[in-house]
Amino acid sequence: MYKLVLIRHGESTWNKENRFTGWTDVDLSERGVKEAKEAGKKLKEAGFKFKFAYTSFLKRAIKTLNIVLEEMDMLWIPVEKTWRLNEKHYGTLQGLNKAEMVDKYGEKQVLVWRRSYDVRPPALEDSDDRHPKNDPRYAAYLNEKGATPATEALIDTVDRIVPFWKSDISKKLKEEGEIIVAAHGNSLRGIVKYLKNISDEEIVSLNLPTGIPYVFEFDQDMNLVKDYFLADEETLRKLMEEVANQGKKK
Amino acid sequence: MYKLVLIRHGESTWNKENRFTGWTDVDLSERGVKEAKEAGKKLKEAGFKFKFAYTSFLKRAIKTLNIVLEEMDMLWIPVEKTWRLNEKHYGTLQGLNKAEMVDKYGEKQVLVWRRSYDVRPPALEDSDDRHPKNDPRYAAYLNEKGATPATEALIDTVDRIVPFWKSDISKKLKEEGEIIVAAHGNSLRGIVKYLKNISDEEIVSLNLPTGIPYVFEFDQDMNLVKDYFLADEETLRKLMEEVANQGKKK
Repeated sequence: MYKLVLIRHGESTWNKENRFTGWTDVDLSERGVKEAKEAGKKLKEAGFKFKFAYTSFLKRAIKTLNIVLEEMDMLWIPVEKTWRLNEKHYGTLQGLNKAEMVDKYGEKQVLVWRRSYDVRPPALEDSDDRHPKNDPRYAAYLNEKGATPATEALIDTVDRIVPFWKSDISKKLKEEGEIIVAAHGNSLRGIVKYLKNISDEEIVSLNLPTGIPYVFEFDQDMNLVKDYFLADEETLRKLMEEVANQGKKK
Repeated sequence: MYKLVLIRHGESTWNKENRFTGWTDVDLSERGVKEAKEAGKKLKEAGFKFKFAYTSFLKRAIKTLNIVLEEMDMLWIPVEKTWRLNEKHYGTLQGLNKAEMVDKYGEKQVLVWRRSYDVRPPALEDSDDRHPKNDPRYAAYLNEKGATPATEALIDTVDRIVPFWKSDISKKLKEEGEIIVAAHGNSLRGIVKYLKNISDEEIVSLNLPTGIPYVFEFDQDMNLVKDYFLADEETLRKLMEEVANQGKKK
Protein backbone atom coordinates (compact mmCIF):
# COMPACT_ATOMS: atom_id res chain seq x y z
CA MET A 1 0.00 0.00 0.00
CA TYR A 2 1.14 3.55 -0.83
CA LYS A 3 0.44 6.60 1.30
CA LEU A 4 0.42 10.18 0.14
CA VAL A 5 -0.09 13.08 2.54
CA LEU A 6 -1.04 16.51 1.25
CA ILE A 7 -0.74 19.43 3.61
CA ARG A 8 -1.77 23.02 2.98
CA HIS A 9 0.61 25.42 4.73
CA GLY A 10 -0.40 26.83 8.10
CA GLU A 11 -1.97 30.28 8.32
CA SER A 12 0.18 33.00 6.77
CA THR A 13 0.42 36.63 7.80
CA TRP A 14 -1.67 37.54 4.76
CA ASN A 15 -4.30 34.83 5.35
CA LYS A 16 -4.65 36.58 8.68
CA GLU A 17 -4.95 40.02 7.06
CA ASN A 18 -7.34 38.58 4.48
CA ARG A 19 -5.18 39.66 1.52
CA PHE A 20 -4.71 37.98 -1.86
CA THR A 21 -1.34 36.26 -1.65
CA GLY A 22 -0.69 34.04 -4.66
CA TRP A 23 3.04 33.98 -5.42
CA THR A 24 3.87 36.69 -2.86
CA ASP A 25 6.38 35.10 -0.51
CA VAL A 26 4.77 35.88 2.86
CA ASP A 27 5.70 34.18 6.12
CA LEU A 28 3.66 31.94 8.42
CA SER A 29 1.78 33.66 11.23
CA GLU A 30 2.29 32.46 14.81
CA ARG A 31 -0.87 30.44 14.44
CA GLY A 32 0.50 28.99 11.21
CA VAL A 33 3.64 27.80 13.00
CA LYS A 34 1.47 26.22 15.70
CA GLU A 35 -0.71 24.50 13.09
CA ALA A 36 2.38 23.03 11.43
CA LYS A 37 3.68 21.72 14.76
CA GLU A 38 0.32 20.14 15.52
CA ALA A 39 0.30 18.50 12.10
CA GLY A 40 3.78 17.08 12.69
CA LYS A 41 2.73 15.65 16.05
CA LYS A 42 -0.41 14.06 14.55
CA LEU A 43 1.56 12.50 11.70
CA LYS A 44 4.14 11.15 14.11
CA GLU A 45 1.46 9.68 16.40
CA ALA A 46 -0.21 8.09 13.38
CA GLY A 47 3.10 6.38 12.56
CA PHE A 48 3.88 7.98 9.23
CA LYS A 49 7.45 7.44 7.95
CA PHE A 50 7.99 9.63 4.93
CA LYS A 51 10.81 8.81 2.57
CA PHE A 52 10.54 11.91 0.41
CA ALA A 53 8.91 15.33 0.45
CA TYR A 54 7.83 17.90 -2.11
CA THR A 55 7.13 21.55 -1.53
CA SER A 56 6.83 24.82 -3.44
CA PHE A 57 9.23 27.77 -3.87
CA LEU A 58 7.29 29.74 -1.26
CA LYS A 59 8.43 29.97 2.35
CA ARG A 60 5.02 29.45 3.96
CA ALA A 61 4.93 25.95 2.45
CA ILE A 62 8.66 25.24 2.95
CA LYS A 63 8.53 26.29 6.60
CA THR A 64 5.38 24.25 7.17
CA LEU A 65 7.23 21.23 5.80
CA ASN A 66 10.37 21.93 7.85
CA ILE A 67 8.33 22.27 11.05
CA VAL A 68 6.37 19.08 10.31
CA LEU A 69 9.57 17.14 9.59
CA GLU A 70 11.25 18.50 12.70
CA GLU A 71 8.32 17.40 14.89
CA MET A 72 8.52 13.95 13.28
CA ASP A 73 12.32 13.85 13.73
CA MET A 74 12.71 13.40 9.97
CA LEU A 75 14.55 16.53 8.89
CA TRP A 76 17.04 14.29 7.11
CA ILE A 77 14.70 13.05 4.35
CA PRO A 78 15.20 14.42 0.83
CA VAL A 79 13.07 17.46 -0.08
CA GLU A 80 12.39 18.68 -3.61
CA LYS A 81 11.12 22.22 -4.17
CA THR A 82 9.30 23.17 -7.35
CA TRP A 83 7.48 26.22 -8.75
CA ARG A 84 4.82 23.80 -9.99
CA LEU A 85 3.49 23.47 -6.45
CA ASN A 86 3.23 27.25 -5.96
CA GLU A 87 -0.13 28.80 -5.14
CA LYS A 88 -2.35 30.05 -7.98
CA HIS A 89 -0.98 33.36 -9.27
CA TYR A 90 -3.47 36.15 -8.52
CA GLY A 91 -2.15 38.73 -11.02
CA THR A 92 -2.71 42.36 -10.02
CA LEU A 93 -4.85 41.30 -7.05
CA GLN A 94 -1.76 40.11 -5.17
CA GLY A 95 -1.34 42.23 -2.06
CA LEU A 96 -4.90 43.56 -2.03
CA ASN A 97 -7.23 43.03 0.92
CA LYS A 98 -10.10 40.68 0.18
CA ALA A 99 -12.68 42.71 2.10
CA GLU A 100 -11.67 45.92 0.25
CA MET A 101 -12.04 44.09 -3.03
CA VAL A 102 -15.55 43.05 -2.01
CA ASP A 103 -16.43 46.69 -1.29
CA LYS A 104 -15.03 47.77 -4.64
CA TYR A 105 -16.12 44.99 -6.99
CA GLY A 106 -18.83 43.21 -5.05
CA GLU A 107 -18.80 39.80 -3.47
CA LYS A 108 -19.70 38.08 -6.71
CA GLN A 109 -16.74 39.33 -8.74
CA VAL A 110 -14.33 38.55 -5.92
CA LEU A 111 -15.77 35.07 -5.64
CA VAL A 112 -15.32 34.64 -9.40
CA TRP A 113 -11.64 35.60 -9.13
CA ARG A 114 -11.11 33.38 -6.13
CA ARG A 115 -13.18 30.45 -7.14
CA SER A 116 -14.05 30.32 -10.81
CA TYR A 117 -12.27 27.60 -12.72
CA ASP A 118 -11.17 29.58 -15.74
CA VAL A 119 -11.51 33.33 -15.17
CA ARG A 120 -8.13 34.99 -14.65
CA PRO A 121 -7.61 38.10 -12.51
CA PRO A 122 -6.07 41.07 -14.40
CA ALA A 123 -2.51 40.21 -15.52
CA LEU A 124 0.65 41.86 -14.18
CA GLU A 125 2.71 44.01 -16.52
CA ASP A 126 6.12 42.54 -17.42
CA SER A 127 7.76 45.46 -15.61
CA ASP A 128 5.84 44.85 -12.38
CA ASP A 129 8.06 43.86 -9.44
CA ARG A 130 5.52 41.19 -8.60
CA HIS A 131 6.01 39.47 -11.99
CA PRO A 132 7.86 36.16 -11.55
CA LYS A 133 10.12 37.15 -14.46
CA ASN A 134 11.63 39.75 -12.14
CA ASP A 135 12.28 37.30 -9.28
CA PRO A 136 15.69 35.56 -9.36
CA ARG A 137 14.23 32.30 -8.08
CA TYR A 138 12.42 31.79 -11.40
CA ALA A 139 15.32 32.91 -13.61
CA ALA A 140 16.25 29.31 -14.40
CA TYR A 141 12.71 28.56 -15.64
CA LEU A 142 12.00 31.40 -18.07
CA ASN A 143 11.61 28.94 -20.93
CA GLU A 144 9.45 26.49 -19.03
CA LYS A 145 5.76 26.75 -19.88
CA GLY A 146 3.76 28.15 -16.97
CA ALA A 147 6.73 28.93 -14.73
CA THR A 148 6.46 32.72 -14.88
CA PRO A 149 2.74 33.52 -15.07
CA ALA A 150 1.40 37.10 -15.00
CA THR A 151 -1.90 35.74 -13.66
CA GLU A 152 -3.65 32.38 -13.40
CA ALA A 153 -7.08 30.85 -13.21
CA LEU A 154 -7.40 27.53 -11.39
CA ILE A 155 -7.32 25.77 -14.77
CA ASP A 156 -3.76 27.08 -15.29
CA THR A 157 -2.66 25.88 -11.86
CA VAL A 158 -4.17 22.46 -12.55
CA ASP A 159 -2.43 22.40 -15.93
CA ARG A 160 0.99 22.82 -14.33
CA ILE A 161 0.49 20.48 -11.38
CA VAL A 162 -1.14 17.45 -13.01
CA PRO A 163 1.75 16.82 -15.45
CA PHE A 164 4.13 17.00 -12.46
CA TRP A 165 1.96 14.54 -10.56
CA LYS A 166 2.21 12.13 -13.47
CA SER A 167 5.90 12.59 -14.24
CA ASP A 168 7.32 12.92 -10.72
CA ILE A 169 5.14 12.68 -7.59
CA SER A 170 3.25 9.51 -8.52
CA LYS A 171 6.47 7.75 -9.54
CA LYS A 172 8.24 8.79 -6.35
CA LEU A 173 5.26 7.56 -4.34
CA LYS A 174 5.51 4.17 -5.99
CA GLU A 175 9.27 4.00 -5.39
CA GLU A 176 9.25 5.22 -1.81
CA GLY A 177 5.88 4.09 -0.43
CA GLU A 178 5.19 7.14 1.72
CA ILE A 179 5.61 10.76 0.76
CA ILE A 180 4.36 14.19 1.82
CA VAL A 181 3.53 17.24 -0.29
CA ALA A 182 3.44 20.59 1.53
CA ALA A 183 1.87 23.22 -0.70
CA HIS A 184 -1.04 25.62 -1.21
CA GLY A 185 -4.83 25.69 -1.43
CA ASN A 186 -4.97 25.75 -5.20
CA SER A 187 -1.98 23.61 -6.18
CA LEU A 188 -3.32 20.92 -3.82
CA ARG A 189 -6.80 21.35 -5.35
CA GLY A 190 -5.16 20.41 -8.63
CA ILE A 191 -3.85 17.14 -7.22
CA VAL A 192 -7.10 16.32 -5.40
CA LYS A 193 -9.12 17.08 -8.55
CA TYR A 194 -7.03 14.62 -10.52
CA LEU A 195 -6.93 11.88 -7.87
CA LYS A 196 -10.67 12.01 -7.10
CA ASN A 197 -11.77 12.89 -10.60
CA ILE A 198 -13.65 15.99 -9.45
CA SER A 199 -15.36 18.13 -12.09
CA ASP A 200 -14.28 21.67 -13.01
CA GLU A 201 -17.49 22.97 -11.42
CA GLU A 202 -17.13 21.10 -8.15
CA ILE A 203 -13.42 21.60 -7.51
CA VAL A 204 -13.84 25.33 -6.92
CA SER A 205 -15.92 24.71 -3.81
CA LEU A 206 -13.47 22.25 -2.22
CA ASN A 207 -11.97 24.11 0.73
CA LEU A 208 -8.83 22.57 2.18
CA PRO A 209 -8.17 23.61 5.78
CA THR A 210 -4.70 24.99 6.61
CA GLY A 211 -2.26 22.68 8.36
CA ILE A 212 -4.44 19.56 8.42
CA PRO A 213 -2.79 16.45 6.88
CA TYR A 214 -4.95 15.01 4.08
CA VAL A 215 -4.12 11.32 3.63
CA PHE A 216 -4.58 9.31 0.40
CA GLU A 217 -4.10 5.54 0.46
CA PHE A 218 -3.48 3.57 -2.73
CA ASP A 219 -3.39 -0.16 -3.43
CA GLN A 220 -0.58 -2.06 -5.20
CA ASP A 221 -1.85 -0.89 -8.59
CA MET A 222 -2.02 2.73 -7.44
CA ASN A 223 -5.81 2.76 -7.29
CA LEU A 224 -7.08 5.21 -4.69
CA VAL A 225 -8.56 3.18 -1.81
CA LYS A 226 -9.51 5.92 0.62
CA ASP A 227 -8.80 9.48 1.61
CA TYR A 228 -9.26 11.22 4.94
CA PHE A 229 -8.16 14.21 6.98
CA LEU A 230 -6.01 13.52 10.02
CA ALA A 231 -8.17 15.55 12.43
CA ASP A 232 -11.27 15.16 14.57
CA GLU A 233 -14.62 16.05 12.96
CA GLU A 234 -15.21 19.19 15.00
CA THR A 235 -11.80 20.74 14.21
CA LEU A 236 -12.31 19.94 10.58
CA ARG A 237 -15.78 21.44 10.30
CA LYS A 238 -14.67 24.70 11.90
CA LEU A 239 -11.62 25.08 9.68
CA MET A 240 -13.53 24.43 6.48
CA GLU A 241 -16.16 26.99 7.42
CA GLU A 242 -13.42 29.54 8.01
CA VAL A 243 -11.90 29.04 4.58
CA ALA A 244 -15.31 29.22 2.91
CA ASN A 245 -16.07 32.50 4.68
CA GLN A 246 -12.90 34.30 3.62
CA GLY A 247 -14.45 35.68 0.42
CA LYS A 248 -17.46 37.15 2.21
CA LYS A 249 -17.68 40.78 3.22
CA LYS A 250 -16.57 41.35 6.78
CA MET B 1 34.87 33.84 -9.70
CA TYR B 2 33.40 31.05 -7.61
CA LYS B 3 32.47 31.30 -3.94
CA LEU B 4 32.14 28.47 -1.49
CA VAL B 5 30.97 28.99 2.08
CA LEU B 6 31.56 26.33 4.71
CA ILE B 7 29.68 26.64 7.96
CA ARG B 8 30.03 24.45 11.02
CA HIS B 9 26.66 24.05 12.79
CA GLY B 10 25.92 26.29 15.75
CA GLU B 11 26.44 24.99 19.29
CA SER B 12 24.53 21.78 19.99
CA THR B 13 23.07 20.65 23.31
CA TRP B 14 25.93 18.15 23.60
CA ASN B 15 28.67 20.66 22.70
CA LYS B 16 27.23 22.53 25.65
CA GLU B 17 27.36 19.46 27.90
CA ASN B 18 30.84 18.66 26.60
CA ARG B 19 29.85 15.18 25.35
CA PHE B 20 31.16 13.20 22.37
CA THR B 21 28.47 13.53 19.73
CA GLY B 22 29.58 12.10 16.38
CA TRP B 23 26.58 10.68 14.55
CA THR B 24 24.22 11.13 17.48
CA ASP B 25 21.40 13.33 16.20
CA VAL B 26 21.32 16.02 18.87
CA ASP B 27 19.60 19.38 18.51
CA LEU B 28 21.01 22.90 18.45
CA SER B 29 21.19 24.71 21.78
CA GLU B 30 19.57 28.14 22.12
CA ARG B 31 22.99 29.64 21.56
CA GLY B 32 23.38 27.46 18.46
CA VAL B 33 20.16 28.85 17.01
CA LYS B 34 21.37 32.37 17.72
CA GLU B 35 24.73 31.66 16.07
CA ALA B 36 22.98 30.39 12.96
CA LYS B 37 20.79 33.51 12.79
CA GLU B 38 23.85 35.74 13.15
CA ALA B 39 25.60 33.82 10.37
CA GLY B 40 22.59 34.26 8.09
CA LYS B 41 22.53 38.00 8.75
CA LYS B 42 26.26 38.34 8.07
CA LEU B 43 26.00 36.40 4.81
CA LYS B 44 23.05 38.51 3.71
CA GLU B 45 24.86 41.76 4.53
CA ALA B 46 27.90 40.52 2.62
CA GLY B 47 25.68 40.02 -0.43
CA PHE B 48 25.93 36.25 -0.85
CA LYS B 49 23.41 34.70 -3.24
CA PHE B 50 23.63 30.95 -2.94
CA LYS B 51 22.24 28.81 -5.72
CA PHE B 52 22.64 25.46 -4.00
CA ALA B 53 23.29 24.05 -0.53
CA TYR B 54 24.68 20.84 0.90
CA THR B 55 24.23 19.52 4.41
CA SER B 56 24.51 16.30 6.39
CA PHE B 57 21.87 13.84 7.66
CA LEU B 58 22.12 15.36 11.14
CA LYS B 59 19.63 17.92 12.41
CA ARG B 60 22.14 20.28 14.00
CA ALA B 61 23.61 20.93 10.54
CA ILE B 62 20.25 20.86 8.70
CA LYS B 63 18.69 23.32 11.14
CA THR B 64 21.72 25.59 10.97
CA LEU B 65 21.31 25.66 7.20
CA ASN B 66 17.55 26.23 7.39
CA ILE B 67 18.01 29.13 9.82
CA VAL B 68 20.77 30.67 7.68
CA LEU B 69 18.65 30.39 4.53
CA GLU B 70 15.61 31.82 6.28
CA GLU B 71 17.60 34.86 7.46
CA MET B 72 18.85 35.33 3.90
CA ASP B 73 15.31 34.88 2.49
CA MET B 74 16.57 31.97 0.39
CA LEU B 75 14.65 29.00 1.76
CA TRP B 76 13.66 28.17 -1.81
CA ILE B 77 17.12 27.13 -3.06
CA PRO B 78 17.76 23.41 -3.61
CA VAL B 79 19.31 21.54 -0.67
CA GLU B 80 21.03 18.16 -0.89
CA LYS B 81 21.58 16.11 2.26
CA THR B 82 24.24 13.43 2.41
CA TRP B 83 25.72 11.07 5.04
CA ARG B 84 29.14 11.96 3.59
CA LEU B 85 28.99 15.32 5.35
CA ASN B 86 28.16 13.78 8.74
CA GLU B 87 30.47 14.38 11.69
CA LYS B 88 33.30 11.90 12.37
CA HIS B 89 31.82 8.79 14.00
CA TYR B 90 33.11 8.48 17.57
CA GLY B 91 32.35 4.77 18.12
CA THR B 92 31.61 3.78 21.71
CA LEU B 93 32.59 7.24 22.94
CA GLN B 94 29.36 8.71 21.55
CA GLY B 95 27.28 10.04 24.42
CA LEU B 96 30.13 10.15 26.95
CA ASN B 97 31.15 13.37 28.67
CA LYS B 98 34.53 14.63 27.56
CA ALA B 99 35.59 15.73 31.05
CA GLU B 100 34.71 12.30 32.49
CA MET B 101 36.75 10.68 29.74
CA VAL B 102 39.69 12.86 30.69
CA ASP B 103 39.37 11.72 34.34
CA LYS B 104 39.22 8.08 33.26
CA TYR B 105 41.74 7.89 30.42
CA GLY B 106 43.78 11.05 30.85
CA GLU B 107 43.90 14.14 28.71
CA LYS B 108 46.39 12.63 26.31
CA GLN B 109 44.27 9.62 25.31
CA VAL B 110 41.18 11.78 24.89
CA LEU B 111 43.15 14.20 22.75
CA VAL B 112 44.34 11.25 20.65
CA TRP B 113 40.76 10.12 20.09
CA ARG B 114 39.58 13.64 19.33
CA ARG B 115 42.49 14.86 17.34
CA SER B 116 44.77 12.11 16.04
CA TYR B 117 44.55 11.60 12.31
CA ASP B 118 44.33 7.82 12.22
CA VAL B 119 43.56 6.36 15.66
CA ARG B 120 39.96 5.14 15.89
CA PRO B 121 37.94 5.13 19.13
CA PRO B 122 36.64 1.65 20.14
CA ALA B 123 34.10 0.40 17.56
CA LEU B 124 30.39 -0.10 18.23
CA GLU B 125 29.01 -3.65 18.18
CA ASP B 126 26.66 -4.36 15.27
CA SER B 127 23.83 -4.82 17.76
CA ASP B 128 24.38 -1.40 19.38
CA ASP B 129 21.47 1.01 18.92
CA ARG B 130 24.01 3.69 18.10
CA HIS B 131 25.31 1.71 15.10
CA PRO B 132 24.23 3.42 11.83
CA LYS B 133 23.15 0.00 10.51
CA ASN B 134 20.30 0.19 13.02
CA ASP B 135 19.14 3.66 11.97
CA PRO B 136 16.55 3.76 9.16
CA ARG B 137 18.09 6.86 7.61
CA TYR B 138 21.12 4.84 6.51
CA ALA B 139 19.15 1.78 5.36
CA ALA B 140 19.46 2.83 1.72
CA TYR B 141 23.27 3.02 1.99
CA LEU B 142 24.22 -0.32 3.56
CA ASN B 143 26.26 -1.27 0.50
CA GLU B 144 27.98 2.09 0.15
CA LYS B 145 31.54 2.07 1.47
CA GLY B 146 31.86 4.19 4.62
CA ALA B 147 28.14 4.93 5.03
CA THR B 148 27.57 2.85 8.17
CA PRO B 149 30.78 3.11 10.22
CA ALA B 150 31.12 1.58 13.69
CA THR B 151 33.85 4.13 14.45
CA GLU B 152 36.05 6.52 12.51
CA ALA B 153 39.39 8.28 12.70
CA LEU B 154 39.72 11.60 10.89
CA ILE B 155 41.38 9.77 8.00
CA ASP B 156 38.12 7.84 7.43
CA THR B 157 36.05 11.02 7.47
CA VAL B 158 38.45 12.62 4.98
CA ASP B 159 38.25 9.50 2.82
CA ARG B 160 34.48 9.81 2.48
CA ILE B 161 34.28 13.57 2.02
CA VAL B 162 37.08 14.22 -0.49
CA PRO B 163 35.61 11.91 -3.17
CA PHE B 164 32.27 13.71 -2.71
CA TRP B 165 34.01 17.07 -3.06
CA LYS B 166 35.50 15.91 -6.35
CA SER B 167 32.41 14.19 -7.76
CA ASP B 168 29.68 16.57 -6.57
CA ILE B 169 30.42 19.74 -4.59
CA SER B 170 33.21 21.11 -6.82
CA LYS B 171 31.14 20.47 -9.97
CA LYS B 172 28.08 22.13 -8.48
CA LEU B 173 30.21 25.10 -7.44
CA LYS B 174 31.42 25.50 -11.01
CA GLU B 175 27.86 25.21 -12.38
CA GLU B 176 26.19 27.50 -9.87
CA GLY B 177 28.91 29.97 -8.87
CA GLU B 178 27.97 30.28 -5.20
CA ILE B 179 27.14 27.47 -2.81
CA ILE B 180 27.04 26.81 0.92
CA VAL B 181 27.93 23.65 2.84
CA ALA B 182 26.53 23.37 6.38
CA ALA B 183 28.19 20.51 8.21
CA HIS B 184 30.44 19.49 11.11
CA GLY B 185 33.89 20.14 12.58
CA ASN B 186 35.49 17.06 11.08
CA SER B 187 33.71 16.71 7.74
CA LEU B 188 34.59 20.36 7.08
CA ARG B 189 38.18 19.70 8.16
CA GLY B 190 38.25 17.13 5.36
CA ILE B 191 37.27 19.73 2.77
CA VAL B 192 39.62 22.39 4.16
CA LYS B 193 42.49 19.87 4.25
CA TYR B 194 41.97 19.09 0.60
CA LEU B 195 41.46 22.70 -0.56
CA LYS B 196 44.45 24.09 1.33
CA ASN B 197 46.62 21.02 1.00
CA ILE B 198 47.13 20.74 4.77
CA SER B 199 49.21 17.84 6.08
CA ASP B 200 47.80 14.96 8.16
CA GLU B 201 49.73 16.29 11.16
CA GLU B 202 48.54 19.87 10.87
CA ILE B 203 44.87 19.29 10.08
CA VAL B 204 44.16 17.88 13.53
CA SER B 205 44.92 21.22 15.16
CA LEU B 206 42.68 23.27 12.84
CA ASN B 207 39.75 24.35 15.00
CA LEU B 208 36.73 25.64 13.13
CA PRO B 209 34.48 27.86 15.24
CA THR B 210 30.74 27.03 15.33
CA GLY B 211 28.41 29.12 13.24
CA ILE B 212 31.02 31.33 11.54
CA PRO B 213 30.88 31.35 7.73
CA TYR B 214 34.23 30.32 6.22
CA VAL B 215 34.53 31.74 2.70
CA PHE B 216 36.67 30.27 -0.11
CA GLU B 217 37.09 32.21 -3.35
CA PHE B 218 38.26 30.51 -6.54
CA ASP B 219 39.30 31.91 -9.91
CA GLN B 220 37.93 30.83 -13.31
CA ASP B 221 40.13 27.75 -13.30
CA MET B 222 39.02 26.79 -9.79
CA ASN B 223 42.32 27.75 -8.19
CA LEU B 224 41.85 28.87 -4.61
CA VAL B 225 42.51 32.62 -4.49
CA LYS B 226 41.76 33.37 -0.85
CA ASP B 227 39.91 32.13 2.19
CA TYR B 228 38.62 34.02 5.21
CA PHE B 229 36.14 33.84 8.05
CA LEU B 230 33.17 36.21 7.93
CA ALA B 231 33.69 37.60 11.45
CA ASP B 232 35.69 40.24 13.26
CA GLU B 233 39.10 39.19 14.64
CA GLU B 234 38.09 39.34 18.29
CA THR B 235 35.01 37.09 17.88
CA LEU B 236 37.09 34.65 15.91
CA ARG B 237 39.95 34.43 18.39
CA LYS B 238 37.58 33.75 21.29
CA LEU B 239 35.66 31.04 19.45
CA MET B 240 38.79 29.20 18.34
CA GLU B 241 40.17 29.20 21.87
CA GLU B 242 36.92 27.71 23.12
CA VAL B 243 37.05 24.83 20.65
CA ALA B 244 40.70 24.16 21.45
CA ASN B 245 39.92 24.01 25.16
CA GLN B 246 37.10 21.47 24.93
CA GLY B 247 39.42 18.49 25.32
CA LYS B 248 41.09 19.82 28.42
CA LYS B 249 40.08 18.78 31.90
CA LYS B 250 37.57 21.13 33.43
